Amino acid sequence: MIVVMKMGAPEAEIERIDQELSEWGLTPEKIVGKHKVVIGLVGDTVDLDPLQIQEMSPWIEEVLRVEKPFKRASREFRHGEASDVVVSTPNGPVHFGEHHPVVLVAGPCSVENEAMIVETARRVKAAGAQFLRGGAYKPRTSPYAFQGHGESALGLLAAAREESGLGIITEVMDTADVEKIAEVADVVQVGARNMQNFALLKKVGAQEKPVLLKRGMSSTIDEWLMAAEYILAAGNPNVILCERGIRTFDQKYARNTLDLAVLPVLRSLTHLPIMIDPSHGTGRYEYVPAMALAAIAAGADSLMIEVHPNPAKALSDGPQSLTPDRFDRLVQDMSVIGKAVGRWHESAVALA
Amino acid sequence: MIVVMKMGAPEAEIERIDQELSEWGLTPEKIVGKHKVVIGLVGDTVDLDPLQIQEMSPWIEEVLRVEKPFKRASREFRHGEASDVVVSTPNGPVHFGEHHPVVLVAGPCSVENEAMIVETARRVKAAGAQFLRGGAYKPRTSPYAFQGHGESALGLLAAAREESGLGIITEVMDTADVEKIAEVADVVQVGARNMQNFALLKKVGAQEKPVLLKRGMSSTIDEWLMAAEYILAAGNPNVILCERGIRTFDQKYARNTLDLAVLPVLRSLTHLPIMIDPSHGTGRYEYVPAMALAAIAAGADSLMIEVHPNPAKALSDGPQSLTPDRFDRLVQDMSVIGKAVGRWHESAVALA
Amino acid sequence: MIVVMKMGAPEAEIERIDQELSEWGLTPEKIVGKHKVVIGLVGDTVDLDPLQIQEMSPWIEEVLRVEKPFKRASREFRHGEASDVVVSTPNGPVHFGEHHPVVLVAGPCSVENEAMIVETARRVKAAGAQFLRGGAYKPRTSPYAFQGHGESALGLLAAAREESGLGIITEVMDTADVEKIAEVADVVQVGARNMQNFALLKKVGAQEKPVLLKRGMSSTIDEWLMAAEYILAAGNPNVILCERGIRTFDQKYARNTLDLAVLPVLRSLTHLPIMIDPSHGTGRYEYVPAMALAAIAAGADSLMIEVHPNPAKALSDGPQSLTPDRFDRLVQDMSVIGKAVGRWHESAVALA
Amino acid sequence: MIVVMKMGAPEAEIERIDQELSEWGLTPEKIVGKHKVVIGLVGDTVDLDPLQIQEMSPWIEEVLRVEKPFKRASREFRHGEASDVVVSTPNGPVHFGEHHPVVLVAGPCSVENEAMIVETARRVKAAGAQFLRGGAYKPRTSPYAFQGHGESALGLLAAAREESGLGIITEVMDTADVEKIAEVADVVQVGARNMQNFALLKKVGAQEKPVLLKRGMSSTIDEWLMAAEYILAAGNPNVILCERGIRTFDQKYARNTLDLAVLPVLRSLTHLPIMIDPSHGTGRYEYVPAMALAAIAAGADSLMIEVHPNPAKALSDGPQSLTPDRFDRLVQDMSVIGKAVGRWHESAVALA
Repeated sequence: MIVVMKMGAPEAEIERIDQELSEWGLTPEKIVGKHKVVIGLVGDTVDLDPLQIQEMSPWIEEVLRVEKPFKRASREFRHGEASDVVVSTPNGPVHFGEHHPVVLVAGPCSVENEAMIVETARRVKAAGAQFLRGGAYKPRTSPYAFQGHGESALGLLAAAREESGLGIITEVMDTADVEKIAEVADVVQVGARNMQNFALLKKVGAQEKPVLLKRGMSSTIDEWLMAAEYILAAGNPNVILCERGIRTFDQKYARNTLDLAVLPVLRSLTHLPIMIDPSHGTGRYEYVPAMALAAIAAGADSLMIEVHPNPAKALSDGPQSLTPDRFDRLVQDMSVIGKAVGRWHESAVALA
Repeated sequence: MIVVMKMGAPEAEIERIDQELSEWGLTPEKIVGKHKVVIGLVGDTVDLDPLQIQEMSPWIEEVLRVEKPFKRASREFRHGEASDVVVSTPNGPVHFGEHHPVVLVAGPCSVENEAMIVETARRVKAAGAQFLRGGAYKPRTSPYAFQGHGESALGLLAAAREESGLGIITEVMDTADVEKIAEVADVVQVGARNMQNFALLKKVGAQEKPVLLKRGMSSTIDEWLMAAEYILAAGNPNVILCERGIRTFDQKYARNTLDLAVLPVLRSLTHLPIMIDPSHGTGRYEYVPAMALAAIAAGADSLMIEVHPNPAKALSDGPQSLTPDRFDRLVQDMSVIGKAVGRWHESAVALA
Repeated sequence: MIVVMKMGAPEAEIERIDQELSEWGLTPEKIVGKHKVVIGLVGDTVDLDPLQIQEMSPWIEEVLRVEKPFKRASREFRHGEASDVVVSTPNGPVHFGEHHPVVLVAGPCSVENEAMIVETARRVKAAGAQFLRGGAYKPRTSPYAFQGHGESALGLLAAAREESGLGIITEVMDTADVEKIAEVADVVQVGARNMQNFALLKKVGAQEKPVLLKRGMSSTIDEWLMAAEYILAAGNPNVILCERGIRTFDQKYARNTLDLAVLPVLRSLTHLPIMIDPSHGTGRYEYVPAMALAAIAAGADSLMIEVHPNPAKALSDGPQSLTPDRFDRLVQDMSVIGKAVGRWHESAVALA
Repeated sequence: MIVVMKMGAPEAEIERIDQELSEWGLTPEKIVGKHKVVIGLVGDTVDLDPLQIQEMSPWIEEVLRVEKPFKRASREFRHGEASDVVVSTPNGPVHFGEHHPVVLVAGPCSVENEAMIVETARRVKAAGAQFLRGGAYKPRTSPYAFQGHGESALGLLAAAREESGLGIITEVMDTADVEKIAEVADVVQVGARNMQNFALLKKVGAQEKPVLLKRGMSSTIDEWLMAAEYILAAGNPNVILCERGIRTFDQKYARNTLDLAVLPVLRSLTHLPIMIDPSHGTGRYEYVPAMALAAIAAGADSLMIEVHPNPAKALSDGPQSLTPDRFDRLVQDMSVIGKAVGRWHESAVALA
């Protein structure tokens, strides 16, 4: 933090500010120039509000933040190295990270019944996916919409895991459900609407399963990384970031605006692995393939894609789901780009 | 919902769609024109996704939603009448609603200690407020920021209530805390970041205290009313809506963009009372008075204003807090507009 | 501009930067602290790009802008005093500014024919307006939409001016039309879509009629004031700013989001008078009255309101137009708020 | 357009509406159901405002637009076929379109002097570019910023064209300059800030050179295609669309949000070729490569990339410019993705 004093600020006022800042536990460093005095603040300034400092004196011209607001999520925290989030699955450990092949996560929005979830698991595994996604608890805009089968769906996910060997990713929406879900899930998902549900972030940070943190619909990159910081600060180092579309002024054709440009930005700011969800990101299955290919070309570490055996009958989000056949073809296309950028798993290709 | 068929759609296909929609529990009504056939859907279409219907057949040209997605929150639900949310306080019942004087809610962002909260309660009551706001549990972007004093702060709020006779409004962030907070609070607040925390909405909907529902930072009006619908559908009819600033492309001077234009829009759509929070809405105390006056002129039923005895030392949100003296002056100014529009409480003025 | 050097930056590198900045015509001032060196830049830094300076050396930690990017538009430029933009009209000079009564501008979106424009002029004058607005050249999203009657409409505006004595405000869209329009108009309007049409800004800045500068749909406050700066820098000191709604994520009920919160922000940043257009700002006539009253309460210097003798038959923007009768009632309501805040013209009231 | 009547609407009222719509030159088709009547509108409804129709009667429940607002720009206008925009350059004709290799456009933001523009042309041609971009007239937020060398820069572009054989793309900002610029340019660019400068669109539509139409910073896809429609309707069929980043709520790290997701959306809506500008789209050269690769993977027909021999000394937009060496490396990387998707020009590769 840099406090710029106005020209002609009285020495006594500068001293007073200097002292008050020291009382706040900071180490002010006075930097004296010919016309102006600047006070640099060393210490734990992550949570200081520049506006609050500004109010200390009418002789303060401006207070400027220099530091990033996040620490553990920053690339510097790992000395520039990428994280490698390793998740155990029945089929073996899967690595999410910059130096590993692209990880494929696929499955339906909601777990509807055993047949559909096991069938989907079988198909997406055959196509090359390492994880099955499927919602047991569903965040729905309307209280009258299907809210997910809840606890019973967790059992179905466990069955699909056993059958297919795939890892399971499913969402938690309530602090009261964290334990129950973490028993079944290999990765616990925090959804976009709960990205700043701080009670939930603390709770998933205090358990051991890796956490998939979706970006809020209108969350800045700083807010997103601060949400990750909550989980990291609570003791859980295994966080995967997932971009799923942001809200902009145009929602006519695509439901959201998939922000692929976060990829190089996040890469430079954080060591955490990055997943892209082109299904929610666009809201229409026709747009998913182009965005999936683009995500791989831009350096995504993982992709989450909705697949449903019969999208027209899906209980939720049908219009953005691929059929298993369309997913097969997409994986073929992804493998071409994945190989071109050196991020494709050989065995995944073999299976496909 | 209106399903528009393409010109030349085969009769058999129209029959098939008609039948499939009937199986979904809807009552399709075929409307036959010279060139086109349109299918009108009667029944519970609130949760149907137009895109999902569109996928039923390539002969469907377009599916259009006609109905509003909310019911209990709609003005029609009360036959055009405004709701009157009555809250008991030690000083007597307070009415929030279109046919009542503007209700003033004031107080600090966080409850810091007994002296400050009791002093603030005394001052804002003297100025004319009916409610004291104060955070025990605070949603903070950074895990390293002051998170509120939690349970102990609830005790301090109870003390301030006893001293001043003011009603208490405080925020709940976790389903696990709802009961504890509802014991002390006269109105339970759901904050902007939790507007779509559906587990929390269901829980506050299942208890008896009135709920203050803040608008999410980038929530559409429909999403906001659907969040209210969650509470109403869970059995709690006492919901107050609070606009507190939305996120736009410009955050340089004001922290958010206070969307006063929701006032006439909400008035036409819903029977629920409407509160405006110009403090969070702008993020700077200098901008609060102009927006508070504007809110009253535009028809707000209530105002929530941050007041702190010493904003420069506030543990959170200091820059947007008024001093008690500034709040006194603002109430005077508000009373002028309030009287001009016939929405000012005589005794409130007398006290001021 | 403040250049913060990294800890341990070599003396020689600091010298090199210092020298290079001097070559750019700036006066760098080195401020040496115990751990860090900061370089303050004095001189014409308004157009420097902080990122460009950052690229000068890997030893630069951060470059921070302190100064506002605008000069002539800033409140400081007039030593804190508000501007008083005086416009001659047949009925006498009209003053736009903080210390004057609210100026009312009313009229149709487009000039359709002589009868309608003269009738509208007569009615809005009787209600208390000082200016007639009406489009001769219309910016329309579609090339197939009515584009305005152009030059012939200018003649009709002149006729309405003669008949009513009202000042005329009309829009210019092409540099080629500036002279022609400035001959008839008392105030030349630059529309939202042309706010950053810099060729046009220069041209209206080089002529003598006052300029009404509407805010671009997604223009930041800085960009808006910089657009005003183009006009001021070209020699025309008479600029009125007009907020007409910004583009946000929700366009379902109101066409735009009227940003009334710019009022206190602009007041603190600039000396220029501020007009509010609640008609375009909301896009629906039902929402206009609440926003018009709010604008006056919040301190607007002027209001622009669409009035059309028969909105249902308007060639453009009918849904946001008031009938003359509704405008009469609105002026009555506005006068109540206007008097309450001491900004109402006595004779205007008398006329109403 | 579909007009839905309320249940119980009187027959006479339906007749009246029917007749009035006929008078507007439309062909209303009454569709009678058991409970409701719907009126379908055939004819030129592109410019009708649904709200305006709604005002015709209180018995109208809703008016819904079915048709797309654009015609000539729509994919249907060419029966589903993509356009092939062919541009003559000294090195031969270049094809922009879905069935052709990716076209590379490169060069500096501004033409600064002959040496730099000729040198840049030489370098980008050697790397594989077919077009040189360079600004003679520059839209700048500040009136005090470098505004481009104007007419004299056109001469330098002509010289660079002669030397390198590259086609020239440069921006026009004023209707008065269209002819002069069209003499030198092979493609005339309309910039983002002028996307709805309708006078300019008509003028470039009336001349013969192909037009590059950049998307406005907050323009919806419909508005963008309607802007293209202005050019097409004026007689010029050769329009290339260019996405260059949109404005969202987060501008901290990237200047804009590059909206790559428009690629599949535009592909389905329009026959026009699509270019991506990752340089303006991100505002930082470090982010350009990832986005350029993603654009090719997602199906872009062309890329526009800023290249400057010495970005640190650029008169404008230095921070987003690649050096020629970095551009060389990027073309190599692009060629890998371009070949993988079958969209790479063999000779371009050979040259690189």
